[in-house]
Amino acid sequence: MSTEQIRASRAAYYTKIAQQRMAPLWESLHNLVPKTPQPKAEPAIWKYSEVRELVMQAGDVISAEEAVRRVLVLENPGLPGKSSMTPNLYAGLQLILPGEIAPSHRHTQSALRFIVEGKGAWTAVDGERTTMHPGDFIITPSWTWHDHGNPSVDEGGEPVVWLDGLDIPLLAQIDAGFAENYPEKTQPVSRAEGESFARFGHNMAPVRHRVSDPTSPIFSYPYARSREALDTLYRNGAVDEWDGVKLRYVNPTTGGWPMPTIATFMQYLPAGFNGRTYRSTDATVYCVVEGNGEVAIGERVFSFAPHDVFVAPSWAPVRLNASAESVLFSYSDRPVLSALNLLREERH
Amino acid sequence: MSTEQIRASRAAYYTKIAQQRMAPLWESLHNLVPKTPQPKAEPAIWKYSEVRELVMQAGDVISAEEAVRRVLVLENPGLPGKSSMTPNLYAGLQLILPGEIAPSHRHTQSALRFIVEGKGAWTAVDGERTTMHPGDFIITPSWTWHDHGNPSVDEGGEPVVWLDGLDIPLLAQIDAGFAENYPEKTQPVSRAEGESFARFGHNMAPVRHRVSDPTSPIFSYPYARSREALDTLYRNGAVDEWDGVKLRYVNPTTGGWPMPTIATFMQYLPAGFNGRTYRSTDATVYCVVEGNGEVAIGERVFSFAPHDVFVAPSWAPVRLNASAESVLFSYSDRPVLSALNLLREERH
Amino acid sequence: MSTEQIRASRAAYYTKIAQQRMAPLWESLHNLVPKTPQPKAEPAIWKYSEVRELVMQAGDVISAEEAVRRVLVLENPGLPGKSSMTPNLYAGLQLILPGEIAPSHRHTQSALRFIVEGKGAWTAVDGERTTMHPGDFIITPSWTWHDHGNPSVDEGGEPVVWLDGLDIPLLAQIDAGFAENYPEKTQPVSRAEGESFARFGHNMAPVRHRVSDPTSPIFSYPYARSREALDTLYRNGAVDEWDGVKLRYVNPTTGGWPMPTIATFMQYLPAGFNGRTYRSTDATVYCVVEGNGEVAIGERVFSFAPHDVFVAPSWAPVRLNASAESVLFSYSDRPVLSALNLLREERH
Amino acid sequence: MSTEQIRASRAAYYTKIAQQRMAPLWESLHNLVPKTPQPKAEPAIWKYSEVRELVMQAGDVISAEEAVRRVLVLENPGLPGKSSMTPNLYAGLQLILPGEIAPSHRHTQSALRFIVEGKGAWTAVDGERTTMHPGDFIITPSWTWHDHGNPSVDEGGEPVVWLDGLDIPLLAQIDAGFAENYPEKTQPVSRAEGESFARFGHNMAPVRHRVSDPTSPIFSYPYARSREALDTLYRNGAVDEWDGVKLRYVNPTTGGWPMPTIATFMQYLPAGFNGRTYRSTDATVYCVVEGNGEVAIGERVFSFAPHDVFVAPSWAPVRLNASAESVLFSYSDRPVLSALNLLREERH
Repeated sequence: MSTEQIRASRAAYYTKIAQQRMAPLWESLHNLVPKTPQPKAEPAIWKYSEVRELVMQAGDVISAEEAVRRVLVLENPGLPGKSSMTPNLYAGLQLILPGEIAPSHRHTQSALRFIVEGKGAWTAVDGERTTMHPGDFIITPSWTWHDHGNPSVDEGGEPVVWLDGLDIPLLAQIDAGFAENYPEKTQPVSRAEGESFARFGHNMAPVRHRVSDPTSPIFSYPYARSREALDTLYRNGAVDEWDGVKLRYVNPTTGGWPMPTIATFMQYLPAGFNGRTYRSTDATVYCVVEGNGEVAIGERVFSFAPHDVFVAPSWAPVRLNASAESVLFSYSDRPVLSALNLLREERH
Repeated sequence: MSTEQIRASRAAYYTKIAQQRMAPLWESLHNLVPKTPQPKAEPAIWKYSEVRELVMQAGDVISAEEAVRRVLVLENPGLPGKSSMTPNLYAGLQLILPGEIAPSHRHTQSALRFIVEGKGAWTAVDGERTTMHPGDFIITPSWTWHDHGNPSVDEGGEPVVWLDGLDIPLLAQIDAGFAENYPEKTQPVSRAEGESFARFGHNMAPVRHRVSDPTSPIFSYPYARSREALDTLYRNGAVDEWDGVKLRYVNPTTGGWPMPTIATFMQYLPAGFNGRTYRSTDATVYCVVEGNGEVAIGERVFSFAPHDVFVAPSWAPVRLNASAESVLFSYSDRPVLSALNLLREERH
Repeated sequence: MSTEQIRASRAAYYTKIAQQRMAPLWESLHNLVPKTPQPKAEPAIWKYSEVRELVMQAGDVISAEEAVRRVLVLENPGLPGKSSMTPNLYAGLQLILPGEIAPSHRHTQSALRFIVEGKGAWTAVDGERTTMHPGDFIITPSWTWHDHGNPSVDEGGEPVVWLDGLDIPLLAQIDAGFAENYPEKTQPVSRAEGESFARFGHNMAPVRHRVSDPTSPIFSYPYARSREALDTLYRNGAVDEWDGVKLRYVNPTTGGWPMPTIATFMQYLPAGFNGRTYRSTDATVYCVVEGNGEVAIGERVFSFAPHDVFVAPSWAPVRLNASAESVLFSYSDRPVLSALNLLREERH
Repeated sequence: MSTEQIRASRAAYYTKIAQQRMAPLWESLHNLVPKTPQPKAEPAIWKYSEVRELVMQAGDVISAEEAVRRVLVLENPGLPGKSSMTPNLYAGLQLILPGEIAPSHRHTQSALRFIVEGKGAWTAVDGERTTMHPGDFIITPSWTWHDHGNPSVDEGGEPVVWLDGLDIPLLAQIDAGFAENYPEKTQPVSRAEGESFARFGHNMAPVRHRVSDPTSPIFSYPYARSREALDTLYRNGAVDEWDGVKLRYVNPTTGGWPMPTIATFMQYLPAGFNGRTYRSTDATVYCVVEGNGEVAIGERVFSFAPHDVFVAPSWAPVRLNASAESVLFSYSDRPVLSALNLLREERH
């Protein structure tokens, strides 16, 4: 047969098998099994100087109660309409004004709150409220009731903005999302603030505690302690050529990740840090805590300043430079890749 | 403001924030965080009596070598164009004719082969070839070279069809796919057939073996043994009202799943079995080995016969009846759900 | 002060502190913290040709029922009066005659039975009886009711001898022994023979099984299968210079040891095998299944024949030679050493 | 035969089998497999008011360098001559004077130092020195070089006494002890003080850290933090009827014990605490940090004051009362019992 005849004959065959909902693998094998990851997500940055005003305007547009969660979703330009920052992760900036309550609900999606600006608002999990300060990393575990609130102006409340990180796209993909609303606006407070941290935060644990949940029992990792750890290591000279000084947050009852689907990190870059290039198969969302610098992600270069949010897709080369002493918080889907034995890293 | 004014004002705000690649969470929260899983995948069946001839015709349409893998992808009608059976899993029927070779390659996707009909073809993994028989469950682990072949007609070769199960859609979603072709058509054979099974298959293991890979070191789980186990349990009376007699395949070096992303099961339904309804958040692909019966999945009811393939999406209620003594093989993404603490089950 | 004065002054001080139940560490530090292990246990062998008659005579001396367990304890000559083969392990030869019952009890000590000669006797664990054949390795897990029995002569019963291996000395040392007698002579039989093996022995497991116990759910590892595995590996050329072909028994639900305190092994030595010397910190008891040869342990050399039992203390160099094709079963306290991160090995 | 004849015949048989190093199990079964633990160790207390002067006199009797370790071993009166506090654990009071060095060595025995009085001395592990303060719990892991020192009087040095806790008897029992002296008096200092704590002590960890050792990478758990945790929990009302407020120390890279063989605990008893009785199969050594009270252990009742050391054998009922607000440090062999699945507890 001529090439043309073969093509026609195959086309006829493909039509026939399509009626049985079948397709020829050999026509798509290269796309389905690529040589290297082909992410649709793109490198991108949200400069806080450009978005802050819009975030604050959300306070006029809708109340926290009506919105349930008053959040502006940061949407990756390569994943339009998907409310996704990376294929597995969501990012959004949430605003809560003095006197407001974001009502209690629970869902199987795991969530982190990384406090961007303002202080004094609280989040409640399992009957314990935690007060927010900039730079704190706070967890609301899968399937736990949680509500957020902010004292009134009279009680010293001020607008608080945080970065929400959730595994919403992952759970949509794997069809594992469940949700419920709490019958009241807020859950009852049954424990004093700091109780979870006293139980688990000091390298100690209750004598009879059995690990039954992969999520960390510490709800809040305060910035003061994380910053102190980075600072001590920097003063002792432990600067990595790729990472600066970088630590991951830990679930102290397992040594593993604080949540089963989301890894979190904090890193310090000394002024003048000129990092080397690395890449890995986890896609990472960064939030600048302090400092200024430049990040190259794939073909793009972004300058960064405090509170900016930027994203590095899977396998994109990343290089960090700091013009001033900088601190970056970041989160990624690394626990998913690790659990499935699919994490790869390259340090150039 | 009137409702209309509010709507207009919000629309203007949404346009403005869209320029910063931001979107209002409160307009999509219900879809993003649903009350229960909302799978796009649908219940479906492929009757072997209807597709067998098309599978065999593939042998005329293309050679194994040209195709690399001569497979008809079974595509879920709810996931058109995605080469997916479930959101995370792929299914296809592969044909290899006497005398053919499917050339050696490797990829990070994990694969299973469940032998549907024909015997004597082989698959090679890590230098060891395994001969296929109907009902065998064979693994090609992530990132291991593998090639398939079939003896010539003179050597007793016959057409062999198997069901391929891979985690292709999952790895596309999480951007973790890598692949390479082997420089030769087949990898060299360095170990005698049965060596892996002798090392690990008899509830023993090499003295100094350290587990470094989550995938089972047993490449082949022969049907004869699996069937014998089910039969013994049935004769001893261990019939579950939902499952009949159901076992999962195990990685004997860990007690866990045979692959980090795919669970596999085999179950026996006595003649007249009238099962109760269950559902779970793992989406499952079934392949009938023996027998006849009926399966209700969500709103659909299918009758099944040997070699039929059917699929139950996440959280869809499933009920199995057997008119004759039946054996079903199945595979699902349960290890993913388990690793991420997202597995839920209901037995009604 | 002169040396003599110092000595006298110290002696007076030692007397004074002894009244407060205190002692000077510096006088005993070298003994308490030795350079290398200083086992009191010695290499030793029990030749079955010399002890078999004595074992059989036990049948005249006492009944199984009166004895509860009619066992001759093999006592390490370096540990006199301690009923110990090694510091942690006990060994004994148990005899059960046709028609006898060894009554049901349970204890926290873990036990293994390695069948030496005779067949058809049974041991019952958790309601399931297992029939014994020479070379079978059978477990009675910690704190499970167990009784042994032997059919009458009319039913084909014959005298059966097995090697008992228990962690009695370890549990005495750590004060963790509990025991109870069952109210009846035998526990009720609630499951057919082979049910545990069908559930767990074929590289499969019940779908909803959760590991709650470190002991293997397989009670019997039949010699036929173990021997077949060794044979296959030998024919494929996998002979180690130190071990011959050696496998460890595995708990298939974890990949770990079959019992939390006792490791078990079986190894094949081809005729003419001339092994190299190794040593490790687990002390090992061997039982010859087939063959003849010679073993050097420390300064001692023993020739061995079928059913002989010999012991290698911790850190003693061991070298195995086989004049005829040989099979050795062995057990040791390796899981204890491993769990406490104290296992060391040297292969010379 | 008459009873007398049976007895004589058995005696003759026992003599005969003894020549083959065999003994009749049935004569000793009850002792070897007891109904409940039969510890030889006894409840005992060392009152610091009675032993302090003797400890200080040790400084005149021998130098730290000559002694290598200037320690008074606390010897359980039930285990005379064994340098043991419990069957598995050792306890001793170590004195180091200003200007002294206890030379560097390493051994497979794990050690803890619980600081009793004095401050400013240091212990060095893996190139990092840790300064001691009363109430600190400090680890020297198995097989790591360690040396201790004390600044001179001119530099502010003062006599420092700590409680040493080691697994010496356990390692003697299982023949797993190895030791080496360092070629120099002290190991070189290669890391600044606090580096390990900065890396691992703040619920964070280095990004690429892999757990390869069961011992905690935190060498020092400062009293200030442990005390603060207990205090917070007490103020929040979390007082257990048996334990008061009790936490265990944790290896933050695993959530497990700080050492593979020794568990450590700290508990707070409010003034007037009148505890209920419990017992467990781990034998526990207590050291009073603050307060006064009474402890009942088995048949004995002891009053306790700061720095007293007392011991509760396996399975002995223990009841704690506090006349003043009290803090107790304790250590036990619980990890051994847990690893071997032999831990039992009763709370009455």
